[in-house]
Amino acid sequence: MHINEKIWSLIKRVRTTSPLVHNITNYVVMNNTANALLAAGASPIMAHAQEEVKEMVQISSALVVNIGTLEEAWIQSMEKAFHAALQSGKPIVLDPVGAGATSLRNSAVRRLLSIGKPQVIRGNASEIMAVMDHSGATTTKGVDSVHSVSDAKVAAQTLSANTGAIICVSGATDLIVHKERKAFVHNGHVMMTKVTGLGCTASALIGAFVGVEKDYFFATLAAMSLLGVAGELAAVNATGPGSLQLQILDKLYNLNEDEFLQTARVEENEV
Amino acid sequence: MHINEKIWSLIKRVRTTSPLVHNITNYVVMNNTANALLAAGASPIMAHAQEEVKEMVQISSALVVNIGTLEEAWIQSMEKAFHAALQSGKPIVLDPVGAGATSLRNSAVRRLLSIGKPQVIRGNASEIMAVMDHSGATTTKGVDSVHSVSDAKVAAQTLSANTGAIICVSGATDLIVHKERKAFVHNGHVMMTKVTGLGCTASALIGAFVGVEKDYFFATLAAMSLLGVAGELAAVNATGPGSLQLQILDKLYNLNEDEFLQTARVEENEV
Amino acid sequence: MHINEKIWSLIKRVRTTSPLVHNITNYVVMNNTANALLAAGASPIMAHAQEEVKEMVQISSALVVNIGTLEEAWIQSMEKAFHAALQSGKPIVLDPVGAGATSLRNSAVRRLLSIGKPQVIRGNASEIMAVMDHSGATTTKGVDSVHSVSDAKVAAQTLSANTGAIICVSGATDLIVHKERKAFVHNGHVMMTKVTGLGCTASALIGAFVGVEKDYFFATLAAMSLLGVAGELAAVNATGPGSLQLQILDKLYNLNEDEFLQTARVEENEV
Repeated sequence: MHINEKIWSLIKRVRTTSPLVHNITNYVVMNNTANALLAAGASPIMAHAQEEVKEMVQISSALVVNIGTLEEAWIQSMEKAFHAALQSGKPIVLDPVGAGATSLRNSAVRRLLSIGKPQVIRGNASEIMAVMDHSGATTTKGVDSVHSVSDAKVAAQTLSANTGAIICVSGATDLIVHKERKAFVHNGHVMMTKVTGLGCTASALIGAFVGVEKDYFFATLAAMSLLGVAGELAAVNATGPGSLQLQILDKLYNLNEDEFLQTARVEENEV
Repeated sequence: MHINEKIWSLIKRVRTTSPLVHNITNYVVMNNTANALLAAGASPIMAHAQEEVKEMVQISSALVVNIGTLEEAWIQSMEKAFHAALQSGKPIVLDPVGAGATSLRNSAVRRLLSIGKPQVIRGNASEIMAVMDHSGATTTKGVDSVHSVSDAKVAAQTLSANTGAIICVSGATDLIVHKERKAFVHNGHVMMTKVTGLGCTASALIGAFVGVEKDYFFATLAAMSLLGVAGELAAVNATGPGSLQLQILDKLYNLNEDEFLQTARVEENEV
Repeated sequence: MHINEKIWSLIKRVRTTSPLVHNITNYVVMNNTANALLAAGASPIMAHAQEEVKEMVQISSALVVNIGTLEEAWIQSMEKAFHAALQSGKPIVLDPVGAGATSLRNSAVRRLLSIGKPQVIRGNASEIMAVMDHSGATTTKGVDSVHSVSDAKVAAQTLSANTGAIICVSGATDLIVHKERKAFVHNGHVMMTKVTGLGCTASALIGAFVGVEKDYFFATLAAMSLLGVAGELAAVNATGPGSLQLQILDKLYNLNEDEFLQTARVEENEV
């Protein structure tokens, strides 16, 4: 079976099994992230209280932790959720939004990684480089990347080796690396960088896919290709980032097999 | 006057009197809830600080409390707001989002109900059953319902008898019960379940309607029929949940009398 | 060069230099504000933690403080950010959302103004009058204005004289005053009042413009005319506030020189 067909099969599995994805994420993207999960067929829950994150992790299929609008109480909830997911064997996706921009964000990433290994870390090139090397702090510009994916390739491979996590660097071409595996997703559209939080959407979708597929590398690849294809097809009719944001949700929902198979440009090979 | 005409008259009253609705609600839906209230002609205020909820309740026509992204400090604000609303005679709408999913949420509902009676409690079937019977916790899936409205009918009637509140169970058909009164709204569209927070929107709209109409049962019925009709008409042109979310806002704003009278399918009778 | 051409030149500068704008803003508008900044070509960062606001201010071109969904911990972060911006010479835009509605909001404004002078204060007429005169509290209705811009003219002039800040009163016609300068923007559309947080968007855009132009009065005028023109052109095809919100983002992104020059109705003169 061609890789696009295998991915499509997994997209259908998300739609039919509707995994519950527990998100501890930032205020900016909560609405759009929840809508993207629903549109893709998953079931989102946003919950951050220290009193309930353990219970939420236990009823969920995956945990997505996103450090976008951070504060100390939230970091502590993220720590509790990490512990709960590790104990119950639920896959964790970490999105280090703005890593490198401030010491609080670097410290939060360090604290979370010291608890245990997330199955997947997804960020833009600057964020992945910052997670790898905190001295990179001065080269980060807020939450937008100032580096290309190829800049981050070595950092991603080293970070994967150091943490054991699958590393996904999103950009014009998405790169996914883990041990001897490497994959590229060549889909997407440049206007997607003008919609806030599509990286966060990517991380949330990865959460949905690792929630239903134990080959987490392949699940990550599938989620990224779904978003890339949806974004690319949505951009055809978008007149700007406002309509693009909306049409991505529509396309996540109404994407059909033919569209996906004809549009996906995915490459997987050995490192 | 036919019931649809009476409802339309109330929809117009909301548009012309523009009640201020104080929302203590969750992060996921704040933007969309505020927009829905504005589109329907009401004036939204979102405020949660313990220092200001009392003053906000006093200048508002109704209070809507939604436990979607809960934490302890917010529960305390909700308690203060409940007290303020009870003291000043302002109607309260309670939306027990995710009740049954965690003990924090069950406990929050218990704490609020121990303060006093909200005029209306609106939730999906699973939430209403969980509020009625905390042992239902294990059958809740995050914030999405795993029960049908008919499953929740007995729970709704018992909960109404126990609390004195009007109970609204939203679903494919919405059910509203209070003492000897019972009503159904047969409008809406299945794609509405793929837009996050439309239940929260329903609760906020109920807030607007109870803010201008003392027959709170009828106000609840009117709000649910407005959203159901708007959603149903919006779905005609929607290509997915992204465009549906937007077109519901447009339809709340531009819905006219003919459209409403021809589309509303409302039923009220004795229990 | 005609004033419209000067403004267009500044709009292009924002697009090409992409200033990083640090927002401490309310939950309701975070997504839409970030999207508006991105669509206009700027780079948004939302960050409120006391531990990181100083660092964020230092890497940003401007600070925007918006008191929309306030609580004590956030006020303290706003104070720290004010201090950091004053120390590092970064321009500050203050948006006193809901000033006059509660004593917490009045007190927050007082506390911030006691630290130092924001370069720009933007609000609706009721908010500007409330900031000027706290006794105005009882005449405010939540976050929506109950006064016209002309009502607020004297208050704006006095507030500018007292604080040294540029005062921008937004409404059907926007008024901008500072010392001997006065300007009007006659663009916009009445349906914009039915989209939540477009005032907040205005403040954020002012942040982007003062981030790249030292004539802060002119920068404020340019930002207001950009939003007014975008809103006016977007309204042509909008069927309600849902599509208007989206189309404003599209228009901020795809607005071209001819459209701007032909649509902008800006007036600047001596007081």
